[in-house]
Amino acid sequence: MSILVVGSVAFDAIETPFGKTDKIIGGAATYISLSASYFTDKVNLVAVVGDDFPKEQIEMLQRHGINTEGLQVKKNEKTFFWSGRYRNDMNTRDTLVTELNVLANFDPVLPESYQDCEFLMLGNLTPSVQSTVIERLRKRPKLIVMDTMNFWMDTARKELEKTLSMVDVLSINDEEARQLSNEYSLAKAAKKIMSMGPKYLIIKKGEHGALLFHNNKVFFAPALPLEEVFDPTGAGDTFAGGFIGYLAHTGNTSFDNMKRAIIYGSAMASFCVEKFGTERLINLDQSELKNRIQDFIELVQFEISLK
Amino acid sequence: MSILVVGSVAFDAIETPFGKTDKIIGGAATYISLSASYFTDKVNLVAVVGDDFPKEQIEMLQRHGINTEGLQVKKNEKTFFWSGRYRNDMNTRDTLVTELNVLANFDPVLPESYQDCEFLMLGNLTPSVQSTVIERLRKRPKLIVMDTMNFWMDTARKELEKTLSMVDVLSINDEEARQLSNEYSLAKAAKKIMSMGPKYLIIKKGEHGALLFHNNKVFFAPALPLEEVFDPTGAGDTFAGGFIGYLAHTGNTSFDNMKRAIIYGSAMASFCVEKFGTERLINLDQSELKNRIQDFIELVQFEISLK
Repeated sequence: MSILVVGSVAFDAIETPFGKTDKIIGGAATYISLSASYFTDKVNLVAVVGDDFPKEQIEMLQRHGINTEGLQVKKNEKTFFWSGRYRNDMNTRDTLVTELNVLANFDPVLPESYQDCEFLMLGNLTPSVQSTVIERLRKRPKLIVMDTMNFWMDTARKELEKTLSMVDVLSINDEEARQLSNEYSLAKAAKKIMSMGPKYLIIKKGEHGALLFHNNKVFFAPALPLEEVFDPTGAGDTFAGGFIGYLAHTGNTSFDNMKRAIIYGSAMASFCVEKFGTERLINLDQSELKNRIQDFIELVQFEISLK
Repeated sequence: MSILVVGSVAFDAIETPFGKTDKIIGGAATYISLSASYFTDKVNLVAVVGDDFPKEQIEMLQRHGINTEGLQVKKNEKTFFWSGRYRNDMNTRDTLVTELNVLANFDPVLPESYQDCEFLMLGNLTPSVQSTVIERLRKRPKLIVMDTMNFWMDTARKELEKTLSMVDVLSINDEEARQLSNEYSLAKAAKKIMSMGPKYLIIKKGEHGALLFHNNKVFFAPALPLEEVFDPTGAGDTFAGGFIGYLAHTGNTSFDNMKRAIIYGSAMASFCVEKFGTERLINLDQSELKNRIQDFIELVQFEISLK
């Protein structure tokens, strides 16, 4: 089934304890689309860049089967640029530069061929742009997944709450879940957040894995204990791309299938952090993915028979 | 099979955001023994208290089937006392008072009836006392599990390394694993620490679960996302008690059985934090434990068939 991905396509400049990059391509929608492309060839991208964005990178996305008909290229404008530096523990990062550029006035135009999309992935963006995308779809998708961040909780709470009330699945990190709910306990935070709209809540905990909440059910997926985390940029978006990609591939949105989708998302994220930026996501092969899934199975499976 | 538990039996005074206690009983060996007592009736305690320690508390341990023949009661001396205050996030605590008292000159005397123990659990103590216990056993136990803390890494590194070289399983938290190995990555830390002696390493991550390493294998057990963590004191010791209790009950030290033991340890720890001190561990019943194990199974089990 087809996926519509909306979000940023950007330039990033990244510094980690292992090195630094010049401007490389990044952005939530880039990571989501690339990751989802390993599960389905029906990924439709909606985003905006300036005419400084390299044609070869658009072709790279197309080679991954990503439909770029909805990627606007604005003449005489510049692509969104973000620059950040990770501290030694790789868990904290400082933003050095944010230049919104084309993203400041992003009007998400949906090509007619995207109207039949069954899965909608709202990458992190102004909440009002996210809700506009939902409103511009004539038919509600089977599943709407939304990512967001603390910045919008601080600056656009009302719009954020409106968008939240329109989606099925929210994906945020633990710190954001605590801020959004004003609860320290993640179990309590989940209840509050699900009362705001989303029937499913994913709480990402970075190196500590991810939780999926639905009604009174909870599922926990670990992160692989990796020897090296080279660059965490895009890991959360890559996770979301694997999650929705697997759901779209299987066409099944049951809780049990969402568990599997979370494992696939976690596996994709574990690749992402092994190299700078999108590098590791460009040339993955299916056997690597299969082996990685096997690692996850071995990591958590145990057998206890309760009499 | 029988377990020998050595460690502190103490008075604690605890402050959490939910309230505070007067002097209540605590200490690593108390938590370990109580927790293990739910799995086997062959728990043999080696510890020391002063004559200020209430007889009723010793009887309470005995009612749990714990053999207190090796519990020395020192006349005209005072029991070890610790007092601490947890911060609002419950992850950080400040020590307010530490009075070693009888623990300052603890000479662990092993009753003859303890000599045949098959499982040895060395609770957190001066490393030289831990190694003395090993040396005083005429026959090496089938499995030696050791807990320790950062304090000994700072103050008794050499003795700590000696004891480490004598044990099978080390159980420490993530911060301690990083300090002991001087590696930030837990996967790298595990390799280094296993080269110091222990063939198995458990890294406890509190609300983020626990990892078990052995050779190139790794197993991850989650913590239950609890709505309330009332008092984390003793959770790590309760975990260790459940772990070794389950191993002794089953008599099986294979990696697959250690996985199960870690789940049982995690379940016991999840009870411990629900009330102050040992309160929740005093009157658990087997059906509560069974239900809790079922919660763990549901939390992490998923099915993926790789073609």
